[in-house]
Amino acid sequence: MMALRCLPGVGSKTAQRMTFYLLQRDREGARLLAEKLLEAIERVGQCCRCRTLTENSVCALCSDVSRDASTLCIVETPADVLAVDQATIFNGNFFVLHGHLSPLDGIGPDELGMDLLENLMKSDGLSELILATNTTVEGEATAHYISEMAQRHNLKATRIAHGVPLGGELEYIDSGTLSHAFSGRKVF
Amino acid sequence: MMALRCLPGVGSKTAQRMTFYLLQRDREGARLLAEKLLEAIERVGQCCRCRTLTENSVCALCSDVSRDASTLCIVETPADVLAVDQATIFNGNFFVLHGHLSPLDGIGPDELGMDLLENLMKSDGLSELILATNTTVEGEATAHYISEMAQRHNLKATRIAHGVPLGGELEYIDSGTLSHAFSGRKVF
Repeated sequence: MMALRCLPGVGSKTAQRMTFYLLQRDREGARLLAEKLLEAIERVGQCCRCRTLTENSVCALCSDVSRDASTLCIVETPADVLAVDQATIFNGNFFVLHGHLSPLDGIGPDELGMDLLENLMKSDGLSELILATNTTVEGEATAHYISEMAQRHNLKATRIAHGVPLGGELEYIDSGTLSHAFSGRKVF
Repeated sequence: MMALRCLPGVGSKTAQRMTFYLLQRDREGARLLAEKLLEAIERVGQCCRCRTLTENSVCALCSDVSRDASTLCIVETPADVLAVDQATIFNGNFFVLHGHLSPLDGIGPDELGMDLLENLMKSDGLSELILATNTTVEGEATAHYISEMAQRHNLKATRIAHGVPLGGELEYIDSGTLSHAFSGRKVF
């Protein structure tokens, strides 16, 4: 069952241990896992508005009318949406880039859905973009690129504070730091 | 996809990371994993002779006629079969208990397939049982129980050596192991 090696952080030794465990002790769990995997692959796609992962055409956050439509938080991954939503008091909308600008890997504005983002920038009532890309070199470059787009649309763009250690990835930051980084955001 | 938590060593945070990874980067791998899981649950059962996990009614080791039928190595789990087979020059047959005697958990001789083991003890040509259960209290008790069965069938029963592991420093070895290593010393 070397197929388990497709999981992040699982090598051949761990895959072997997992296989024995599942076959000896938890066949029901293994069956459930297989079914849930197939179900997820089948049903989970991207939200047509914010590009996060969802089972519907519009995700739960985007279809929640009680959220503040005047702020838009731009993140690199769907995991970041969850992290920000759970750790901070932010109550606006999200936009997921699914990566960052990386010309050498052929990742340009088109791959990150910038055209969709530009459309969102034209929407009424939007007043602030919060750039919450990772604080890596590529994340900074991506934030900078979006801030220039925002300028063209006369929108304020803010960057989450560098309370986050440099080189850090949002997904793995503790919620306290993340919350501080949000409240300490500055005009980009 | 909290179904991933059925995997040993995977908690909710890791399950979330795995889910995002699979859905964003490796849907093909996820599909393959699901299919392999279902296939394994469906096809993998116990060898009717040694009780290890196999896709056939008799496992590859048991059906290999070139193996030495005069020795039988008794282990607790199918993973132990693999470990012994890969690490040692042992070329005999195996028997898997799928656990150890543990009366408090309701694990007695019947649950460990001792009736099947007793049948094997009657087979022609068998001369030695190697007791390779874990060197824990329960493993020792199980080995002792089987050695008494062996005695009734006039079979030699040997126990794997207790001692200092290779590369072990005496200073950090627990006293029980050290004491065993001393009493089991051999002429150099």
